[in-house]
This record gives sequence, C-alpha cells and structure tokens, in this order.
Amino acid sequence: MAVFTDGYFTMNEDEAIEFTKAKLGFFPADAELTCKEIGDGNLNYVFRVVDVNSGKSIIIKQAGPVARISDEFKLSPDRNRIESEILSLQDKLAPGFVPKMYHYDPIMNCCVMEDLSDHEIMRGALMKHKQFPLFADHISTFMAQTLLLTSDVAMGHKEKKELVKSFINPELCEISEDLVYTEPFYDCPRNDVFPGSRDFVREFIWEDRKLSLETAKLKFEFMANAQSLIHGDLHTGSIFIKEDSTKVIDPEFAFYGPAGYDVGNVVANLIFAYVNALFTGPSDQVEYLERTISEVIDLFKEKFLALWDENSVERTARYEGFREYYLDSILRDTAAVAGLELCRRIIGLAHVKDITSIEQPETRAMAEKICLTAGKEFILNRELFKTGGDFAKAIRQSAAVFSK
Amino acid sequence: MAVFTDGYFTMNEDEAIEFTKAKLGFFPADAELTCKEIGDGNLNYVFRVVDVNSGKSIIIKQAGPVARISDEFKLSPDRNRIESEILSLQDKLAPGFVPKMYHYDPIMNCCVMEDLSDHEIMRGALMKHKQFPLFADHISTFMAQTLLLTSDVAMGHKEKKELVKSFINPELCEISEDLVYTEPFYDCPRNDVFPGSRDFVREFIWEDRKLSLETAKLKFEFMANAQSLIHGDLHTGSIFIKEDSTKVIDPEFAFYGPAGYDVGNVVANLIFAYVNALFTGPSDQVEYLERTISEVIDLFKEKFLALWDENSVERTARYEGFREYYLDSILRDTAAVAGLELCRRIIGLAHVKDITSIEQPETRAMAEKICLTAGKEFILNRELFKTGGDFAKAIRQSAAVFSK
Repeated sequence: MAVFTDGYFTMNEDEAIEFTKAKLGFFPADAELTCKEIGDGNLNYVFRVVDVNSGKSIIIKQAGPVARISDEFKLSPDRNRIESEILSLQDKLAPGFVPKMYHYDPIMNCCVMEDLSDHEIMRGALMKHKQFPLFADHISTFMAQTLLLTSDVAMGHKEKKELVKSFINPELCEISEDLVYTEPFYDCPRNDVFPGSRDFVREFIWEDRKLSLETAKLKFEFMANAQSLIHGDLHTGSIFIKEDSTKVIDPEFAFYGPAGYDVGNVVANLIFAYVNALFTGPSDQVEYLERTISEVIDLFKEKFLALWDENSVERTARYEGFREYYLDSILRDTAAVAGLELCRRIIGLAHVKDITSIEQPETRAMAEKICLTAGKEFILNRELFKTGGDFAKAIRQSAAVFSK
Repeated sequence: MAVFTDGYFTMNEDEAIEFTKAKLGFFPADAELTCKEIGDGNLNYVFRVVDVNSGKSIIIKQAGPVARISDEFKLSPDRNRIESEILSLQDKLAPGFVPKMYHYDPIMNCCVMEDLSDHEIMRGALMKHKQFPLFADHISTFMAQTLLLTSDVAMGHKEKKELVKSFINPELCEISEDLVYTEPFYDCPRNDVFPGSRDFVREFIWEDRKLSLETAKLKFEFMANAQSLIHGDLHTGSIFIKEDSTKVIDPEFAFYGPAGYDVGNVVANLIFAYVNALFTGPSDQVEYLERTISEVIDLFKEKFLALWDENSVERTARYEGFREYYLDSILRDTAAVAGLELCRRIIGLAHVKDITSIEQPETRAMAEKICLTAGKEFILNRELFKTGGDFAKAIRQSAAVFSK
C-alpha cells in the first residue's frame, strides 16, 4: 500500500486508485474503481478514475517533478497549487467555464477535478471541421469576466496586489519569455523550422531588425505589466468543448500579466484552425472560423465595456475617454500576442497539429507562410487593430498572398 | 524594565535606551547613553541614542501603529521590515548612498541605523540657499544603479520576480495612488488649497478633462508597471546631505514600479527649491538649481546607458534601438511624475515648505501657479522631454509667465 503523507512521488495508475480511496469521499463505498493515465500534455500526469458501477468519474492531475516538454525546463511542482487556486477563483469570476475542483493535495502535488470526458479538446475538434456556434459567446464571457474583474478597474487595489503576490509564477513565465518572445525571432538551436519554410523564416523574420525591436518591447511589457490575472496559455488545446459547453483547463501558466495575452492566444489558435481549413476543409469551415474570430473580438469588447460600467470601483476609471483608451490598449496587445503566437508555433520548439498535420510539403510551407505573414503584420501594426473586422481582414489578406 | 520580546509597543526615550542596551553590541560597555526623539516625519518615531563618553551614536526608527500623517491612513508596521531589507539591498547596488543598517527587530518593528546628524535634510538646506555641487552626480549614480540593476534588463527574470513578490507594498502604494494620482485632480475634501490659488486650481486643473484623462492613464501604469525596485518617495525631505555626501533615507514606500517615478520626484522637488529661490534667493541659487535639474537628467541618462552596456543579461535588451526606446520611456515617466508631484504638493494634503514658507500671499500664489503650470505641461507633453535642457526650458517658461 502506498502512503501519501510521507512525501511526494510520481503515481502510477494503481496508486492513483489508492489515492482516490484514501483521500476522497467522492465515490460510493462499494465503488469498483478503474484508472487510466491519459495525459498528452507536457507538464503533468493525468489519471482518469472511473467507478464501473455508478459510471461516476474524476480526473487526478499530478505535476511531474520535471516538465515533460523537455528536460531543460525544470519546474517547481508548486504549479498545481497555483492551478487549484486559480480554477476556484475563475469558477467564481466566470461560473461554468472551468472544471469543478474537488481536492488539492500539497504533498502529492496533485489536484482532483471534474471529469470532462464528454467534451473533446477543441483543437482536435476543429481539425475534424466541427463547428461550435456558441464558442465565441462563451470564450468572450470567460475572458471579459476573468480579465476585467481581476484588474485595478474592478478590484480594490490592495486586494489586487495580494493576488499579484500569490500568483507570481517565475518558472512558467520563463517558458513563455523564452519560447514565445525570444527564440522564434533568431536562429536559436532550439527552434524547429520546417525545411520548406526555412529560407522564408530567415529573410522575413530573423533578418527583420524592426520586427526584433518590437519583440523586445513586447517581452518587457509581458515581464512587467501586472494588469490582469491571465490564464497564460489559452490555446485551443487548453479548451474542452462540446456543442453547448466550453471549459477552459490547464491554467498553470496563470499570473498577473497583460490582459491581451489571453485574447491574442485565442485569436491565433483560431487562425491556425482557419489555415488548416483553407487547405483541408470545406469552405464553410473557413467562413465559420473567420466569423468566429471576428465575433470573439467584438463580443469581448462589448462585454468588457458593459462589465466596466457595472463593476468599476476606481474613480479615475470613470473619467471620460479612459474606458476606450484602456480597451484599445488591450486590443493592441491582443494583436501583438496573436502575432507572436502565430510565429512561435511555426518557428519555435512547440508546434500545433493544425499545421504539422498538413502532409503535402509545399502546402504545409504555404500554410506556414500565411501564418508568419499575418503574425508579422499583427506585431508591427498592432496599434491599428480595433475591431473583429480588422483582425479578419488581416487574415484574409495574408491568405490571399499565398493561396489562390 | 521594559521587555522587548513579548510584543510590540511604542517606545519612549528611556525605553529606546533600554532597547539599545538589551539588543545591540554597538556601544562600549561603559557607555553613558542619552536619547532624544527627533522624528518630524509622518510615519515613524525616530530616536537618536548617543554615548556621551565616546561620542558614538545611532538612530532607532520605530514604526508607529498608525501613520502619523493622518488617522485615516492605517499602515502595517511591516513597512520597517521592507525598509531594512531595502536599505541593505540599496547599499549593495549603490554603495555609500544610504545609511548603514545595523539591526532590524521584527517584534518592536524598528530598525537601527547609522546616525547622519552631521548631514542635514536637503529641503531645509536648499531653503537656506546652500549649494551642493556634487548632488547631481551622487543622485544620478544612486538612481541609475538602483533602477537599472533591479530591472529585467540586468537581473535574472526569475530572481527579479521573487524581489517583486517580497516588495509588494499595498498600504504605502495606496497613499501614493490617492494623494499623488487622484485627489489633487478634483475638488476632493481632503485637498488643502491656498485661498489665493483656488480659482486658478479650479479652472486650470480641475476643469481640464484632458488632464484628468492623462492622470488616469498614469495611475494605472503606476499600479501595474513592475519595472524597477523604486524608492517611491524620493523628495528632498528624504535626502540627508552635506558637501561631500548624499544619503537617501526613508525607503518605506519602496516597491516595483515605474523607474521614472524616482527621477520625477527628484526633479519636481528641485523645482520647488528653484521656485522658492526665484522669490527669496540670490539669482545664482536659481541658476544653480536650474543647472542641477538639467545635470540630474543628463547624468542619469549617461550612467544608465553605460550600466546597460555593462550589465544587460537579457538578449533582447541588446537589440538595436531598444536601449534608447527604454530610456525614452523612463524620461516620459519622469516628466509625468514630476508634473504630478508639482500639482499634488500645491493642491493636495501634503505640502512642501519651499512653497508654504513664502509669506506674502500674492507671491505664494504666484509661486504656486508657476508649479502648476510647469506640472501640467510635464503631464500633457511628457513624450517630448528627452534632455536636461528640455526640463530646464519648461521650468523657465512657466516661471516667465508669472514673474518678471
């Protein structure tokens, strides 16, 4: 029998069942538990524990001692404390859009949460050309509520500073600082560039001094701008979805950073799905994704401003023109981060299946060039993106350069 | 006999002597100690303990349970932990420009430090029209070293985030947020407006919607931009000076904020001395102060850039053009904060003697209008201030409007 109080160890499937019996009152006494490790992420082991009799199930997510993405990243397992706290907080701020949290265990560095096996990971679903007409509404609510309600606009400033303090997250931030803001923009050995795109990457990205200067500005803003409690990794692989439900998972990168970071990640990852659909999907999938990108932006703006009027506690937040100035700055950061994400997923260490699954090499290279062209445009001209239509237009124009 | 281990209480002079004997090995065994409470600040009790035999002396600074500035501000006595840690850190970053720290006592909430009684408070010295030719050199070194060396330019980003965390300072920041960024810019009951300036304040400051919008932007930057470990209250009342020595004291407002905040406070408080000298001093004092303001900016820039080249550890910090972009942003914040300080010391709760000591009411009103005119110019046109000469010119022009 494993003991769960003496110190941390990495569990196997049997030990995850023992842990469930020892620590949780979730299942009935006569439960017949089975367990499978289903993790395909990079940082954690994920166990699904099911009671064969009742059909009830839970997920146990345990931090490995070393991030699985690469042995070069050493991560403190404290990130699962951050994850359980933030899921509880997000569930209060935007109820219904994150999995329920049942238990957090600081010794085993794991948390136990709602099983979402009736949902599927959004990236895979989009690659199968499924459509989710409620997604733009759901994700814009989630982002407007979590981002506005944790900012100085809507929180007591002392209370907000205590939250900033408890979500300082040096190790996970370092991963983003390196993989998103730095390595993709020079010929870094850790990059992973598709041969068919290499010349284009060198000329169009690495040799552009104006572009690298902008990435430096953005990196320093990412490191210093404690604006909102952001998810920090809000791509379509961090979203569980089904027709009538959207659940945001994996908030272990959460910290106080620029609000536009989350919105930009959602936009960029919808663009990867859009580019995938351009070459592999029916034209109505392309239209659905373009419309969704546009709606995410416009609904986010609308909800953010409405929440501002209901929730602003800060006197100066009600000064004429400030609301619009503030929202503009979030849209500028949204464009910039969408651009960074579009570049880093093509050039850097961590790719996305939407693009790597395109088998024909010339087609894949074309898809990558569309992403990089849109990405650079978003970074360099980030001040100009104000509406969903502005974003959709930049994507269409980049696509038009390479596809016919 | 008082006991210093059971719990916090506010000491009197006799108890400060007992504390010295019980806790410190600083004085010889046969010392004959005398003590006087010499605090004139708002937040602390300050005891000077002297050995009549050896002439050796120390300062004990004890946090009162309530800030003395007003019963409305309730402050945690933890600020003296912050003070002792930051003085030790500043002494490493910029040796010789802060008092030596001998002891910190977490129960009594006090710290024991070097006695600087052979120095004088700079504000008073400038009002006596003394000149300190080394000041610009000293303070620019102090600021360049403390501000650059605690930033993401020159620190490991993980290490910097741990510092951000340990210097989160909600209560003292709230004072600045209220008294510097908010109350002076509307007709707040807590303001203290000189009758001869009231009409001007209403029309020129309170009724200017463009100005209030800019203060909102600046307030949100102050609350979110964790750029450098700043002193946070670097006015001429926080500087002990003598001909060959400059010591920065009272860092209890320290936290990670915009680097330009400290530089702007130094500039604004030199401007108060300049305006005082305009009406009460010899013309060479006016020239000395104008030259000093200009030198503080230009020497800060020069030293900051040199330190950047020697100490930058961040790859993107070396991208072409980034160093200049970053320094420009600090100068912009410097101008903005100088402007806020110029307004808030005239309109808000906490005034400066440089101005309030001007006895003739018309002259005082004129002095105040010069400060407010320069202040508004600095805030509205903050992007345009790039050199010491730019700052000096704005001051001269504001003075020329009202004095002849």
